[in-house]
Amino acid sequence: MNERPVGKKRVRFEPDNIEVMAETGANLLRVAQDAGVYIASSCGGNAVCGTCKVLIKEGNVATTGLDNHLSPEEIRQGYRHACSSHVLTDLTVFIPVESRLERTALTREDADAFEISDGVMGFIAEMGRNQEASPATAIESEMAPADVALEPPRTRPPLAKFFLKMTPPTLEDNVSDLSRILRELKSLYNLINLTVDFDVVKKLPETLRAANWEVTVTTIVTAISPSRAARHRPRVINIEPGDTRDRYYSLAFDIGTTSICGQLLDLNQRKVMAQYTDYNRQIIYGQDVITRIAFSQKTGGLDKLQQAVVSTINGIIRVLLSQCRIALEDVGHFVVAGNTTMIQILFGVSPKYIRLAPYVPTVNFMPPVKAKSLGIEAADHVYIHSLPIVASYIGADIVSGVLASGMHEKETLTLYIDIGTNGQIVLGNSEWMVTAACSAGPAFEGGGITNGMIASGGAIESFEINKETGAPVVRTVNGERPKGICGSGLISIIAGLFKVGIIGQDGKFDMEKNNIRLREGQDGPEYVIAWAPETQTGRDIVITEIDTGNLLRAKAAMYAGFQTLAKSVGVDGRDLEQVIIAGNFGHFIDPEEAITIGLLPDLPVERFTFIGNGSLNGVRLNSYYTDIIDDARKVATMMTNFELSDNTDFTNNYIASLFLPHTQASEFPSVMKWLNGMKVRK
Amino acid sequence: MNERPVGKKRVRFEPDNIEVMAETGANLLRVAQDAGVYIASSCGGNAVCGTCKVLIKEGNVATTGLDNHLSPEEIRQGYRHACSSHVLTDLTVFIPVESRLERTALTREDADAFEISDGVMGFIAEMGRNQEASPATAIESEMAPADVALEPPRTRPPLAKFFLKMTPPTLEDNVSDLSRILRELKSLYNLINLTVDFDVVKKLPETLRAANWEVTVTTIVTAISPSRAARHRPRVINIEPGDTRDRYYSLAFDIGTTSICGQLLDLNQRKVMAQYTDYNRQIIYGQDVITRIAFSQKTGGLDKLQQAVVSTINGIIRVLLSQCRIALEDVGHFVVAGNTTMIQILFGVSPKYIRLAPYVPTVNFMPPVKAKSLGIEAADHVYIHSLPIVASYIGADIVSGVLASGMHEKETLTLYIDIGTNGQIVLGNSEWMVTAACSAGPAFEGGGITNGMIASGGAIESFEINKETGAPVVRTVNGERPKGICGSGLISIIAGLFKVGIIGQDGKFDMEKNNIRLREGQDGPEYVIAWAPETQTGRDIVITEIDTGNLLRAKAAMYAGFQTLAKSVGVDGRDLEQVIIAGNFGHFIDPEEAITIGLLPDLPVERFTFIGNGSLNGVRLNSYYTDIIDDARKVATMMTNFELSDNTDFTNNYIASLFLPHTQASEFPSVMKWLNGMKVRK
Repeated sequence: MNERPVGKKRVRFEPDNIEVMAETGANLLRVAQDAGVYIASSCGGNAVCGTCKVLIKEGNVATTGLDNHLSPEEIRQGYRHACSSHVLTDLTVFIPVESRLERTALTREDADAFEISDGVMGFIAEMGRNQEASPATAIESEMAPADVALEPPRTRPPLAKFFLKMTPPTLEDNVSDLSRILRELKSLYNLINLTVDFDVVKKLPETLRAANWEVTVTTIVTAISPSRAARHRPRVINIEPGDTRDRYYSLAFDIGTTSICGQLLDLNQRKVMAQYTDYNRQIIYGQDVITRIAFSQKTGGLDKLQQAVVSTINGIIRVLLSQCRIALEDVGHFVVAGNTTMIQILFGVSPKYIRLAPYVPTVNFMPPVKAKSLGIEAADHVYIHSLPIVASYIGADIVSGVLASGMHEKETLTLYIDIGTNGQIVLGNSEWMVTAACSAGPAFEGGGITNGMIASGGAIESFEINKETGAPVVRTVNGERPKGICGSGLISIIAGLFKVGIIGQDGKFDMEKNNIRLREGQDGPEYVIAWAPETQTGRDIVITEIDTGNLLRAKAAMYAGFQTLAKSVGVDGRDLEQVIIAGNFGHFIDPEEAITIGLLPDLPVERFTFIGNGSLNGVRLNSYYTDIIDDARKVATMMTNFELSDNTDFTNNYIASLFLPHTQASEFPSVMKWLNGMKVRK
Repeated sequence: MNERPVGKKRVRFEPDNIEVMAETGANLLRVAQDAGVYIASSCGGNAVCGTCKVLIKEGNVATTGLDNHLSPEEIRQGYRHACSSHVLTDLTVFIPVESRLERTALTREDADAFEISDGVMGFIAEMGRNQEASPATAIESEMAPADVALEPPRTRPPLAKFFLKMTPPTLEDNVSDLSRILRELKSLYNLINLTVDFDVVKKLPETLRAANWEVTVTTIVTAISPSRAARHRPRVINIEPGDTRDRYYSLAFDIGTTSICGQLLDLNQRKVMAQYTDYNRQIIYGQDVITRIAFSQKTGGLDKLQQAVVSTINGIIRVLLSQCRIALEDVGHFVVAGNTTMIQILFGVSPKYIRLAPYVPTVNFMPPVKAKSLGIEAADHVYIHSLPIVASYIGADIVSGVLASGMHEKETLTLYIDIGTNGQIVLGNSEWMVTAACSAGPAFEGGGITNGMIASGGAIESFEINKETGAPVVRTVNGERPKGICGSGLISIIAGLFKVGIIGQDGKFDMEKNNIRLREGQDGPEYVIAWAPETQTGRDIVITEIDTGNLLRAKAAMYAGFQTLAKSVGVDGRDLEQVIIAGNFGHFIDPEEAITIGLLPDLPVERFTFIGNGSLNGVRLNSYYTDIIDDARKVATMMTNFELSDNTDFTNNYIASLFLPHTQASEFPSVMKWLNGMKVRK
């Protein structure tokens, strides 16, 4: 104990047994974050949400702020909120299961990565891109990776590598070093009108001579210029000694509000080498974009948020590189997508006006910038590229997802929907697209729900009433004992309870029902999903009428958004030929249940497709094929965004949607048919 | 004395009375340089040239290196070479006149600036550029500066400012901030396909709102892209609050090996606001490019050279801004020219291969880079642009000078010649151009000449033998008492002595001549130009046979270069319609005298034009008119460079030129006619 620095205290986190030194007075939530211990914190440490509950087993903390989410009993036991606790003495802090954010929750996605990747490759093949390769190239590619530099410019990756074996200069041919390279690029690869980064020039003389005039030139094309010709004019970003064409990698990232998913891509084989997902370290500053934007307005807030996302990205890069034993210098490209707030923060652009009417983003096409200048651990020559942004709440993630879905290439009338705290809707086809965003609130991500949680281990993700016994049957993430309810579980529970009449069309519990699980709780009527002895928390897992109301409002916002958008372009929901559901959350919902509660339009289930992390898939396509850059630009430009916030039609539709499935029975004929049939049976 | 830091000594420089503290052991040449005391140092402090002679009046120095340029008497008196002296004790150091570099030597150029500027304007008018302005604009321009943004893109400055007064966004029109600006630029100014610097985006949201949507957008076009369309695609580099069109300035610099000249330009009025010249602080590392290149190869050498030129530039910028009371942020553009070595060093690119066969420069078109990234004191958004380079010894200064001369626009067969240590020759017209460089040695700049000096106060710049008395009449720079001989003086002296037969066609003194000034000196035959009592140094100013030989070799190199180049393209020297002499040195020579010694071709004097600092004039044109960028590219591309170093024709011509005026009498008919006439008269 004697070696301890003055003013420092020892803080031990259980059950992880991670011990760190912290300054006296340090905020416990920040201490945990710095120690790599993730604690749920929906409100961003503002002592509002009450999700960051921890148990102080040993030592004392100074408590600030309100603790109205803790019962007197919990306070007596030593429970505190991490966000309002400050280190006074050495501490032993226990993080209860329900407060834990575990990285394992994210691994489900990673496991899917390769399968998704194959799917994308299939889709690309379908688009006819591979048909452009000459037969010779196609045969070669079975033996070794094809030389992508020889592919037509529009189908090769935007990052291209060209190997040059040059004749050294003589007195008769003593053009400048750069001219020699440009001359060779023109003669061998028909590359003209290149621009060249200044940094390339600086190291050129030594590189060329040390490499005996055999070098690999790396070029990029970017989506940033509005002129197609300019867009396809390559920029020389690196000149390396020797032939480095076999070391040809790029990074594709989806920057989510909650989690960040990165893939390391081999551009020769156009395949995913590795994928890794981690929580966005911005989480400690707030769980949703609105809280983050608010935090960005504090002194130093934007910098802190930017550093948090960059440190998450850097952590993921390190994992990916070490998994594949690939050197940082061999990664030449970095493409990202994310919602508008995430992209602006990552690039260090204040997101302030995203949440203020009239909701103006700063740019649609973010100019590429050196990744290193943002603090990202990348080689000096690497630029970071973002997919285009459409509006404050229709971000690069949506453009990317739409690209990956291929809806911009087909005449099929398609609804693309990303369900979440900020729901996004795209309607259209290859000819036109309209978009709208609706603030659904955090219910779909377990926020504001008594026993809500994100979809990590132990989260109830589906629910069914056993018709024989009337008892609920639940399925949890990873098959663990129940710990809470995630978004898909919540939909499943409400659909299930609605089907058996425990919840009525108005979302209220029918307390007349003679059901042992139905009871009057602290917050009014509630239904017990799992009894205390069955759960990880040792407490009953319940759903309350308040929870039901929250979900009702969330689903109403999503559906009213779709309804308003469809009406504004004269589309009848029944004419939809395809519904694409994107997002990790969407990946796990049951469309039939979603229709039952009136979240998704009442269509035959075969019209629904789930694409998972569509945003990441689009980023990967952008890394693989140059012409996807044009597509991205086209998609972003053709999207017409409708602002719903002050739209009276939306308000009316929203109110009409606060009902199961909907006040307008005609919107949900199949649900109504079943409902009426059930009533008749009674 | 007690407050003196440990290890520091007080060093006082006379006659300037500048006192500084220096580390014990510090090199005296560096101490002087840091104190702003300029000491001549041809060899760059390598103890070779002996020009940095100083008198240690008080205190002691440790002397290293050879002092074979000092007589035992001088050593006894306390003379030392600054480059080989190290501070041991407090010192009082006297800088003798002949060792001083004075800034006043440079002011002659500055005084000419405005006249030159007018000349350039006349030239531009001649080129018909101003005819494109509408009559209305022309009338307006008499009252107020015309709005250059409204000029046709090809004649306005490459740096353009556009004022926008925008309607704030509404829910109905909430495009991104940047889209709003681009939309307005398109609608008001027909600007399309712009690229935008990332840095602009970062500060955009706050700038727009703080300025109530009234902003000035600054764009540049650059010469760097080989595609004309791409070249004329503007790049948005700055967006400022309010209307800043009246604050519209740029910097034009000529980076000379010896001196650096900067001009501050008002782009609205297209006029020079101020000019300032200073010695290139690289001088302490060597007086010519070869010494500098050698120094750049030492550890940290390139960095030191780069910092030296940048600190000189920064000093000049400070003077220019404070003279005109203009703020740094209002200067939006920075264009430079200079020889290849100077440009590569300024941009931090090693000049190593410039002096190694086959003499390859790194680039012809240096990519623009942020001025600040090179350490230049400029606003964040300012790029530094260099004119194009042709070859290792045909630099941006020659391209710039040719542009300023207008020879690329006329059919007139023109010889463009820049006389100096590195002489450059351009031959051609608007259809074709060939170039060659020849290493003439330092004689034209007073180097290697017993009493040689640069053209600063007291330098003998012209010489004549009074026909009555036979006594020499000299004119000195600033009319001071003679201190030494500069290049133009040397030509004048040799022409004069040749004309009276004191020097023969072989360059030897005719010791038979009965002349009191002709004597046998330490280094052989010499002629006394000025007696000790008349001079500032208190010593005789002489010209020796060795000096004459040095000048002969220098002029032979220049003339042989021209001869070889002319012959290689089948041009007869007599067909030259115009000879343009560039360079500050060239500015002061007498063409008749230069013809007499065989330096310039034997043509009627009316065909000779002196353009002074042509390089700076070209830089200014590049700052004023966008289409000059295309011209610069065209000129640089059309120039075919001939390497003379291993050319046997050149060697033969060189040997034939080591004669006054030339061994081939047919080359100099008018001189020979006069010479033969004189012989006949005898």
